[in-house]
Order: sequence, then structure tokens, then C-alpha cells
Amino acid sequence: MAKPKKTPRPRAETPKGFRDYFGAEVTQRAEMLRKIAEVYHRYGFDALESSGVETVEALGKFLPDVDRPNEGVFAWQEDAEGEKPGDWLALRYDLTAPLARVYAQHQNDLPKPYRRYAMGPVWRNEKPGPGRFRQFYQCDADTVGAPSVAADAEICAMLADCLEEVGIPRGDYVIRVNNRKVLNGVLEVAGLAGDDKERERGIVLRAIDKLDRLGPEGVRALLGEGRKDESGDFTEGAGLSDEQAYKVIQFFDFEAQRERRLEAVANLEKHVSDLPPKASQALLAGDYSDQSIPLEWRARLNDFSLIILRGLVEGSKQGNDGVRELEIIVSLLGAAGYGPDRIVIDPSVVRGLGYYTGPVYEAELTFDIQDEKGRTRNFGSVAGGGRYDDLVKRFTGQEVPATGVSIGVDRLLAALQAKGRMTSTEAGPVVVTVMDRDRMADYQAMVAELRHAGLRAEVYLGNPKNFGNQLKYADKRGSPVAVIEGGDEKERGVVQIKDLILGAQIAETATHDEWKDRPSQFEVPREQLITKIREILRQHGLPDRDAQA
Amino acid sequence: MAKPKKTPRPRAETPKGFRDYFGAEVTQRAEMLRKIAEVYHRYGFDALESSGVETVEALGKFLPDVDRPNEGVFAWQEDAEGEKPGDWLALRYDLTAPLARVYAQHQNDLPKPYRRYAMGPVWRNEKPGPGRFRQFYQCDADTVGAPSVAADAEICAMLADCLEEVGIPRGDYVIRVNNRKVLNGVLEVAGLAGDDKERERGIVLRAIDKLDRLGPEGVRALLGEGRKDESGDFTEGAGLSDEQAYKVIQFFDFEAQRERRLEAVANLEKHVSDLPPKASQALLAGDYSDQSIPLEWRARLNDFSLIILRGLVEGSKQGNDGVRELEIIVSLLGAAGYGPDRIVIDPSVVRGLGYYTGPVYEAELTFDIQDEKGRTRNFGSVAGGGRYDDLVKRFTGQEVPATGVSIGVDRLLAALQAKGRMTSTEAGPVVVTVMDRDRMADYQAMVAELRHAGLRAEVYLGNPKNFGNQLKYADKRGSPVAVIEGGDEKERGVVQIKDLILGAQIAETATHDEWKDRPSQFEVPREQLITKIREILRQHGLPDRDAQA
Repeated sequence: MAKPKKTPRPRAETPKGFRDYFGAEVTQRAEMLRKIAEVYHRYGFDALESSGVETVEALGKFLPDVDRPNEGVFAWQEDAEGEKPGDWLALRYDLTAPLARVYAQHQNDLPKPYRRYAMGPVWRNEKPGPGRFRQFYQCDADTVGAPSVAADAEICAMLADCLEEVGIPRGDYVIRVNNRKVLNGVLEVAGLAGDDKERERGIVLRAIDKLDRLGPEGVRALLGEGRKDESGDFTEGAGLSDEQAYKVIQFFDFEAQRERRLEAVANLEKHVSDLPPKASQALLAGDYSDQSIPLEWRARLNDFSLIILRGLVEGSKQGNDGVRELEIIVSLLGAAGYGPDRIVIDPSVVRGLGYYTGPVYEAELTFDIQDEKGRTRNFGSVAGGGRYDDLVKRFTGQEVPATGVSIGVDRLLAALQAKGRMTSTEAGPVVVTVMDRDRMADYQAMVAELRHAGLRAEVYLGNPKNFGNQLKYADKRGSPVAVIEGGDEKERGVVQIKDLILGAQIAETATHDEWKDRPSQFEVPREQLITKIREILRQHGLPDRDAQA
Repeated sequence: MAKPKKTPRPRAETPKGFRDYFGAEVTQRAEMLRKIAEVYHRYGFDALESSGVETVEALGKFLPDVDRPNEGVFAWQEDAEGEKPGDWLALRYDLTAPLARVYAQHQNDLPKPYRRYAMGPVWRNEKPGPGRFRQFYQCDADTVGAPSVAADAEICAMLADCLEEVGIPRGDYVIRVNNRKVLNGVLEVAGLAGDDKERERGIVLRAIDKLDRLGPEGVRALLGEGRKDESGDFTEGAGLSDEQAYKVIQFFDFEAQRERRLEAVANLEKHVSDLPPKASQALLAGDYSDQSIPLEWRARLNDFSLIILRGLVEGSKQGNDGVRELEIIVSLLGAAGYGPDRIVIDPSVVRGLGYYTGPVYEAELTFDIQDEKGRTRNFGSVAGGGRYDDLVKRFTGQEVPATGVSIGVDRLLAALQAKGRMTSTEAGPVVVTVMDRDRMADYQAMVAELRHAGLRAEVYLGNPKNFGNQLKYADKRGSPVAVIEGGDEKERGVVQIKDLILGAQIAETATHDEWKDRPSQFEVPREQLITKIREILRQHGLPDRDAQA
């Protein structure tokens, strides 16, 4: 008889661009998200969880990166039902597009304004890169149906509370605020306001959105004749006149704005010299994020920024409205205790400015880290958001104002790790070793006792023959303590406790002298088991009860 | 110029078989999962989160429902890279197949045994039905690499702890245990042991797995000549002789087993009459789930079950091993405090018996509910699991023993709701109304104060013109309290507090007499705002601090 053909073994691999998360990576993220959810909830937002799958039709082509509207999602077609072709379904690429669908679908049942938070995985069908994955978490809060700029201000306050709740101390972050209407004002002033200028406006917006990548020179080229990139591809420009381009450039020439602020500061120089030396130096160097600058001076910096912006949009009603909105945001937040040490008006916040329609905000962490190349730099942005008014309109035809924020979950986790707020591992369980296979019931009773006392604990469940393997297992698990109870100990009513952390320290030290009064293994009466383990955990700075998450 | 063709508006709908979860539906599930994760963690299990997407190759065709190995998943093909066709990817349909992939992929880095828990959505491409969705949560814990039956026993204990932790009191659940090896023993005794009997064994296993649906008669038919279903389709039978079939039927003739237990009880009748009347009645009626039956009698019932099973597998070594394993599980659990009031040997646990290779366990809730047709019945199963030894072998060729449990998240949530442990709504935020649009800064300051005191609160952010709309909003949100501060109140240093729950009660009552001493709106000094709100929350049995999750 012919042998059946063997099918080859499957590869045990994640798909490209996906990864697995283990232990602390999972629990720390869960814990962080839980704290953020608590803040969102306290602010009156309600939880919403939509499914990972949406119809392609409902998702639309709203990926913020406008260059590639047709790519970026994982999609498939449902089986046909008789004559009717199946719907195209796709994995959601963010939490905002599903929110628009939910609001349109359930609008008769939802309160207005509808304030919801959502957290969960999203998927992007992109080329994976180092540190860039095709599934990642988002954590959003949005207010739909509130035109008031108070809704935007509130989200900035909430963002500040979230950061402090998860462990970023005040002084280590600022919320930077800008406004799309100011940019619209600039475009109007530059003569790009009419319906016939849509193409030009589009080019300008896309160029400014790419300021990070292209630099000022690249953007300048795109405002004029166009730009050839390194690969030789030519991108058509907006064809602005020099005068027009100048007006736009003023808006994002942050260096020049910095100098104007410096100038304003210089006019106050005799007051500057009253400041502590560190603060006056920082001010004169234009380093406004320095925490030694007193609060009233920070408030003055926000005022300078408003003055500069007002100049840039002179003659445009929309531009002036935008500046006025920024002013209101700062004053509402100030009244609620969120002062200029945390809320900064900053025209250089341009990410997503092409997508948003009103206020735009970004949470930036201001403490220094070493980047991959060993350079010191600010940690940077961990959350962003703003006002967008067109998403629901796709479904209903009605314009519904909305504003919201998305926290970059992985970035914020990395920041907490950089600040030493989270270690990359967690303590393993107390391991009850198996000395005597026939007494498994004793060990199970012992571990049940430990667990009911709130300790993380387990019996070794591998083959107990080789005792060394049991200790190797405890080591691999990062266990702080192993418990040993042989027949002899059982008879005498005692147990052996092995302090594995101390044991590792002793093993690392060449001379044992300093440890000789502190053996890593000792015997205690059986009834002292729990007390003694708790004591060891406390000695090593570990919690003496297990409360994960 | 021709108008550009309008694209029709997209439909605002979830795909068929998917749904949205709002508010309490989300937070209660999150809270329940957090508590279960805490128990899993305390037992020494580590968190694992794999992505929702796997290669079809890695997922394999392990959907437990063996009738449709090729269906059931959402899959799509990656874009080709040059000549190489793209991989087929799919959404995971459970958390066990990804665990096998993870174990095979990372086995050099993982501790052995590897004990992990996982929770998250899974997807099944099935015809949606009432209450049946194509995305739902699973919540699993598995021990991979431990052949010891102690690993199975431990999971039964953990399951009991999980149920109590989330709010199912002792007495309202039992963990039922069975063993695939006993069934193998029965098959051996029935002459179906050899390699040449694989087809017959397959038919018998599938038949028993469908016992629920087909009933004993249907299974009987499948053991013999075969069975014609209502649609007229014929399923081929195993073709067993009457004698062979009888041996198999004995195994799942739970009625006959019940009678044999009753007979055993009857032999002890003079002792039975010593029991409290309710207990002896329940025993004689065979209703062993009755909580009045004393512990030692429950232990005796487990013993009777073992005796019956031993009889069924007489002459089969594997069958005897299976019974012995059940005996050990009961004794290990008993030693750890999980007695026969919670752990029940039950041959009628047959779900998944075709899939598992050793012990099988199921958590059943024993309290009564009314089903859709108004009949009283046990709530039933909320979790199940068992030992499976072949999953990792697909990847590595090595047999790796594994045992684990999956909690049915939605079923358990429904049970908690049925027990009144969870209400279907949660309290809305305190709503600070906007009496005076120009004093938004005051209201923002007030709401910040409430939030910092730990109260859930928000300022009304819709159009404040119509005050009635503000109260309607508060009503829709389920807000317990609204705060009103007009210019007059501001001047006098007071605020108006509206107890909305009391207000609703008054509105529902025809006569106002009983409320006349308790107005639903009153004035308090501004500085007593927080104290007074807390007082109202406590009066209504609501928490006076917001701690969601």
C-alpha cells in the first residue's frame, strides 16, 4: 500500500509585521490603559467597543496619509449570497472611522453630545519596519456633537490628567495647541481662499503636513514650482507667487517666530534680569520648555504667540476666529487650574493640520532621552488630536462637529519605561518544589494556602525527578522564593525557604564574606511559611500580595 | 460643465454578525476579565498577547467542529512580492491555536512548563444567529509541557477561584470532570482499539460529541447502520454489532448510571434516613446538585461514579488509567480544599471529548434561571477545558502535553447579570449645567474641582440656550445629579443641586405627599458642593468616588 503523502510541517511564525507580547509587556499596557480609562470615565466619557471588522464602505478612505488613500487596510470579500455579491470587509485602521459609523447608526439612541472613549487594536496593511507593526493599540476619547471650543479645552485638560495618572510628573510634559483656522487665515491672506483654489490649498496642506520629513526647503519648493525627491520623482508645486509663498512661509517659519518672541522678551530685558539666572538664560536662548521659567512668564509667552499669530492672519475673519479660539482655550484651561506651565500655544504643531478643521493639540514629553544614535533629545509627542467636522457627514449628509484625542499607547509605555516607572519584567511566582512525587497532595494544599493569602505561587508541574531542573525553572520564571519540603521536613513540621534573589546576588559576588551572616536558604516552622515569604518579598522591594493590573 | 457624479452615501452598519458594545457592557466585561486575570496571575500563569492575525498555515484546521475543517475563518491573501505569491493570513478563531504556534516559535526562550493566560477577541466566519456573533471574547489559561495530572487538577481549582472572584458564590457552581481515556477504554472494551478501527472510532466520537443535539437515539443510530436527519441527508454509521454498541451506549446512558447510583444509595438507606429530609429526598430523587446533601455524601457520590466507570472499562489498561486519573484529581483537589461540593466526577461531560486526550472539565452554574420559553432550568456551562497533546506536534514533530481552560466570557457575564451582580447600566456623570455662556471658565473650574475630588463629572457642552435640553441630556446619561449656578447664585456664593434620581421618583409618584419634606432641588453654599453631592450619591447606593474598572 502506498504511504499517504506527508504534508510539510507548518512554519511556527507570526505573519510579517506582527509580534507576540509576553508577561509584563501585556500587564503593564493593560494597567496603563486601565488608568487612562479611569480618567476618561471620570471626565464623563462612556466606553464604546466596536468590533475589529467593518465594511470597507463604512470605513471609507480616511487614512490621514492622503497620498495612499486606497492602500493601508486588510480587506477581504464575504461569500456571495445567491446572486448578491458578498460585502467587502476590512480590519479597522483607527478608532475614529468606526466612531463616525457608530454615531450615524445609533444617533437616535445616543445622548447629544455623545462622549465616548475606546481602546483596542487597530490594523494597518503597511510595510513593516523596525519598531513599526501592523497591529497596534489606540486609546481615544472624542466628543461628537459639541461645537463649543470648551470641548477642545477639556480634552487638553484630560490629556494632562491622563499623563499624570500613568506616572508622567508635572513639568515633564506640555500640551501644545494650534488651530487649523489660523492656517486657513494665512491661506486666505495669501490669496488662496476661493473655491477655485482648492488644488493649491491641497498642495500647501499636504506640504505642511510633511514639514517634519521634507524640511522648510522642501515645503518652500512645493509652494512654488514643485520638488524633485531623491529618487528623481517630481511632485507638482502649488505655483504660488513669491509674495504669496512668503505669507505662507511666515506661518511655519518657526525660527523667525522664535526670534520675534526673543525680541519681545528683550524689550522686557530689565525684568528678565530679575529672574533667577537659569530662567533668564533659558528665556534669552528661546528655550521656553525650561521649567525654571516662572509661571507668569510662561503666560506672557503664550501672549506673544497670540500676538504673532494675529499679525499673520490680519484681515482674515477665519484666521482671527482661530486666534480667538486659542485665546479662549488658554483662558478656560487656566481657570480650571491648567496653566501655561502645561498648556502652550505653539504654531509648530502641524501634524494632522491638513485633516483637522479647528483646534489641534499634542502632548509632548519634555524630558531628555538618548536616541538610537546616542544623541540627547526630548522624548517628544505621545498623543495628538483635534477638531474634525466631516466624518459623520459621509453617512448622514449633516455636518456634525467633533473633537477628540488619540494616545499613542506604545510610545507612552516606552516613555514610562524610559522614566524608570516600569521595569521590563515582573516577579515570578513562589515555586513550591516537588521533593516527593507521592506527596503532590501536600504540595497542592500548600500552594492553595499561599494563593489564598494573596501570594503568587505554583507547584512545579514538570518532571520532578531532577531537582536542579526545578530550581532552573524558578530562575527562568524570575521567582523570588522557592519552598522545599522533603519527608524529613514534613516530619519535623518545618519547611526550607530559598531566597532566590539573595542567592543570585551571592552567586555573583566573588567573596562570600559579606553574605555569610545571611544565608539564602533557611528553615522555618511550617506555620511561619507565609509570614517569612512576605518578609523576603518586602526585603526585595516586591509587593507582598499579588495584585496584577 | 457637467457635475461630477455623486457617490452614494455609505451605509452606517456593522457587518452582519458583528455588534457594538456600549458603556456598562464594556466596563463590566473589562472588570470581570481583570478579576479573572488576577486569579490566573496568582496561580503563576504569565500573560501572553498574540496578534489577531495569523498565517492560515500556522492556524491549521483545528476548529473543534470537525465537520467543517475548511470553513469558519476570515482569510485573505497578502500581496505578492515579485514572483513569490503572498501568504494567506486569517483572523484567529480561538486562543489555543496561536498558543501552539507561540510555543513552537519561542520554545528555546520559554520556561518549561510554560504557563500562560490570554484574553481577547476571536473571530469565526459563521452564519450569525440570535445571540451568536462572529467576534467574541475568549479568556484562556493553559499549561504546556506538564504531563502531570496535577496540572489538570490545578486548573479545576483555578476555575473555582475565578468564579468566586467574579461573584458566583460557592454552592452556585460545580466543576464537573470526566476523562477521554475512560471513553478510549470503553472503545477498547467494545473492540474498537486497533489501528484498523480508526474510521469507526471517528464516527463514535463525533456522535458522542453531538449527544446534546442528536439525543441518545440519534447517537445509537450512528453507532449502528447510520442516521437520516430531518432534511433526509443520510450519515453513515460505525456499523457496530449490538454487543459492541451496547458497551458504548452504557458509557453515555446517564439515566442508567443514575439508577445504579440510586441503587447504591438505596443500599445505604438506613443511613439516608439519618439525613435531613430535604437532603435524603434529593438523594433518592438523584438530584445530587442539591446543596443540602452533606459533604461526605457528595464524596460518596464521586466514589460511586468511579466504581461505575471502573466497571465500564474493565479489562482496558487505558480505561483504568483514566479512572485512576480522575481519582487522583479528586484527591489532589480535596487536599487543597476543593471538596466534592465543588468538584464532581461526571461521565456526562462529553462536550469536546473527541478533541481532548485526557481529563476534561466543565464549570456549570447550578442556580435556576428562566429560559426564553419561561421554563426554569440550570444556568449551565460557562467554561470548559481539558488535556490535549497534539497541537504543538504539528509544528515540531514532538508531542507536547498541554492542558487548559477557556471561560465563555459572554455566558459568564450573562450569569452575573442573572444573579443581579451587575446592572445593565452605570451611573452617568454629575452634569454641571451652563446657565451663563460667558461664565464657561467658572463651570470648567467647578467641574475640574469635582473631578479632582474623584467624582465623575462634566460640563454640558451642547448648545446651552435651551435649559430643558441640558436636563434632558443629564437624564439620557443617567446622571444622578445636576448642578446649577446662575449669576445670582454666583453672587450669593451658593449653588443649586438637583437630585435627578429623587426627581424621577417624585415624577413617577401620583401624590407628592410622601416627598414633600424632601425636595429634589435645593441650594447649598458653594463650598459644600462636593460634600453634598457625595451625600446624595450615597443615599442612592452609588459609589461616592469614581473608580471604573
